[in-house]
Amino acid sequence: MDLDELVRPILELLRGADARDVRISDLAGPDAHAEAFTALGASLSLGPGDAPLDLAALTRAIEAVIARSVRTLHPRFFNQNFAGADPIAVVGDFLGAALNTTMATYEAAPVFTLMERAVLARLAALAGWGAHDGVFVPGGSFSNLYALQLARLRLDPDARERGHDGAPLVAFASTHAHYSLEKSVVLLGLGRRALVEVDCDERGQLRPDALAAAIDLALARGQRPFFVGATAGTTVLGGFDPLPALADLAKRHGLWLHVDGSFGASALFSPAQSHLMAGVERADSLAWNLHKMLGVTQQCAAFLVQKPGSLRAAFATGASYLFQPDKPYAELDSGDATFQCARRVDALKAWLTWKARGEAGFAARIDHAVALADHCAARIAGDPRFCLAAPPSWVNVCFWWIPPTLRPFAGRTPETDAALHALAPRIKAALLRRGEAMLAFQPIDGGPNCFRLLFINPATQIEDVDATLELLDACGREALA
Amino acid sequence: MDLDELVRPILELLRGADARDVRISDLAGPDAHAEAFTALGASLSLGPGDAPLDLAALTRAIEAVIARSVRTLHPRFFNQNFAGADPIAVVGDFLGAALNTTMATYEAAPVFTLMERAVLARLAALAGWGAHDGVFVPGGSFSNLYALQLARLRLDPDARERGHDGAPLVAFASTHAHYSLEKSVVLLGLGRRALVEVDCDERGQLRPDALAAAIDLALARGQRPFFVGATAGTTVLGGFDPLPALADLAKRHGLWLHVDGSFGASALFSPAQSHLMAGVERADSLAWNLHKMLGVTQQCAAFLVQKPGSLRAAFATGASYLFQPDKPYAELDSGDATFQCARRVDALKAWLTWKARGEAGFAARIDHAVALADHCAARIAGDPRFCLAAPPSWVNVCFWWIPPTLRPFAGRTPETDAALHALAPRIKAALLRRGEAMLAFQPIDGGPNCFRLLFINPATQIEDVDATLELLDACGREALA
Repeated sequence: MDLDELVRPILELLRGADARDVRISDLAGPDAHAEAFTALGASLSLGPGDAPLDLAALTRAIEAVIARSVRTLHPRFFNQNFAGADPIAVVGDFLGAALNTTMATYEAAPVFTLMERAVLARLAALAGWGAHDGVFVPGGSFSNLYALQLARLRLDPDARERGHDGAPLVAFASTHAHYSLEKSVVLLGLGRRALVEVDCDERGQLRPDALAAAIDLALARGQRPFFVGATAGTTVLGGFDPLPALADLAKRHGLWLHVDGSFGASALFSPAQSHLMAGVERADSLAWNLHKMLGVTQQCAAFLVQKPGSLRAAFATGASYLFQPDKPYAELDSGDATFQCARRVDALKAWLTWKARGEAGFAARIDHAVALADHCAARIAGDPRFCLAAPPSWVNVCFWWIPPTLRPFAGRTPETDAALHALAPRIKAALLRRGEAMLAFQPIDGGPNCFRLLFINPATQIEDVDATLELLDACGREALA
Repeated sequence: MDLDELVRPILELLRGADARDVRISDLAGPDAHAEAFTALGASLSLGPGDAPLDLAALTRAIEAVIARSVRTLHPRFFNQNFAGADPIAVVGDFLGAALNTTMATYEAAPVFTLMERAVLARLAALAGWGAHDGVFVPGGSFSNLYALQLARLRLDPDARERGHDGAPLVAFASTHAHYSLEKSVVLLGLGRRALVEVDCDERGQLRPDALAAAIDLALARGQRPFFVGATAGTTVLGGFDPLPALADLAKRHGLWLHVDGSFGASALFSPAQSHLMAGVERADSLAWNLHKMLGVTQQCAAFLVQKPGSLRAAFATGASYLFQPDKPYAELDSGDATFQCARRVDALKAWLTWKARGEAGFAARIDHAVALADHCAARIAGDPRFCLAAPPSWVNVCFWWIPPTLRPFAGRTPETDAALHALAPRIKAALLRRGEAMLAFQPIDGGPNCFRLLFINPATQIEDVDATLELLDACGREALA
């Protein structure tokens, strides 16, 4: 196979990453995609009689995948908590795939083991930690899962052998915390009721007084609090929970303090933004996804624990065919420090991107995103066609498009809620038809659907913000028509 | 950045994938690696004052990563349950990284969602299933974890809300089953004691009579059996548990039957080997890693469940900012069918490789590997310098090198056990110094360390097998000297 021919369209995609004259989404349904692939001789379906595709057909298939996929590299893709992948990280992923090994042992991944340790050590230092333990996991959901498991085992070490005994353990996190905490307590056998959701302020930041009350209530009910899950950078509002106050409460009650900084911990790279993370130095564990704000490709998720040895104590089994103590450098094997067996070399792309950009480059990326969000929020605040749905924070801006009949917007009523809620999907559909920008909508705290712009991609410029707001206005009018 | 320059060394690596005149392992310790990277101007460590690397330094770093990493593409790399990555899969990983999206929603991953469904549907059909449910996960350990969670919830649906109540649930798997089952029962809050290890025959295949007895014993003790974890292709011996007999026992006692075919399920592609999987049509769930026998890159792990809707029932939370029911094609969103939130597009590389090779190509790859293993086992059986440590099966050959003073080998004694056990790490060290072949050693069933050859790479030839045995003999003599 001529590899150059196969990678040509991929390199072209990366070279044209910041092109604005290309559709972000194809918007086609399953049948349309299926027909298109069939037409080019590479049907999506797989069957026993299929002849292998030749180079030309494979290349066409790759081109079709690119044309028909969502262009998350586009400067006006604001739809997710990641955007604008760094091409260096993409190359790192390619390199890791070509070397195709597993992080489980130093023997199989010597250089990657050292890179992982280097990346984790510097992340821990940025968090103000000295000693630490850590491992890369396949996404922040696993960081949250691992944190809960470590906290459970600190409270009840016998659970490793005995299992959960039905004791009424309770964990606390805000109503804006990531839904993986809910999935985690179910998976861990603690049950959904083990997660208590605590109220937030209007910025989606957990209220310490509400947490104190929730802990007291749990204790009064005979439950056993063991975990506080703070969020640094909530998914929707970009809120940062007040870590010092939460650390005080965690200390007072002997609770594990986990900071889910999957989205927001990268603020630590920016001297102008790192104040948002103040207090993280007191956390027991920290989730930090480099694939969100920093443009490293999916997935690149670091899980850090402050106490050395914690991971091995929770996960080790000492499988004799992998972790032979009579092997050179066996003490560097990471496999017993995590749930996984084979593990991708995610640290490689993080290391390569970090080396290419430097910490000043990461800081500039974040400062640029925050500046765009500030500009956007200011624009919206001064424009009667829009209304902020929450005070903006971090790189998130949530807002409604206000139909002309409701301007100037006099505040929410059940009637305006119903109107705004129903409009959002129709406006988004109009947006997707045009393909010039992509952003998400969702309800907040039971309110009506609002739009959410997430600023992450360094290729995004002030003009993109302005153009996207004008586009939304046009799509709003179209949705009303 | 000049991307062509950065990807050049990666393409060269792939073009020279089957080169035999290159070291497999660099064998260096952490200090030597660190010094080498520092010398080329790209220190492994990361610090706040580091200047960004220029293109030349980044390229040197990529070249050093390749030179100093383990060459799993080498035709004499026999060390793991994967080898010989298919360059098409590597390109698929590159493409997926460049498009950098998440599988969570159809909106963000339309083509990949359809590819995932196509791959899962054909895998299910190969297993003899009609209706099915499934999702790609980051490795077979997660398939085993998910299977146990689904089985627990089938027995005790209230556990989702209430948590594990301390009931003495027990799961059964063989002593040769993957260690992730042990990790899973701990993580799930069932406790390590919830996993009962059942004896195997000399091929590492679970003995149904031993399972029947173990179930009876558990019942007599007042425990509640709920799960049988069969293995199709054990890690060390390549044993396939007798699925029909296990399915009978599972049915009789109402237990969930999970088949961990992470390694061996690919036998289903080969008309000559598929008999090993007979009975899988009766399984409740199946783990199938395409990154092992099929050369798709790490990770590419399918988890299949026979009953539709099972995954959503176990995992769904309905996060309002992702899974809006008022969004087009929301019924295709896969995010609520798994524990993960963002998820890599692993199905893409599977689909692309499948299209390039066809099912006949996959079958040929497997048949070639089995033929090499058969040749190797026959060679060893007729050579007094070696002794099989277990009857060979599938693509695994486990054996000892017999020192001249013990030939002809008259069988194991405590003295020969001690001698063979101590020799293995020394022979492996000699092998690694030469860098011409790489294979693993481990004890089996408490016996002495033995070597394990795993045949997976289609570039491996008969001559490689013969040369590797000669090399082992030379290293054995060196280790004795």
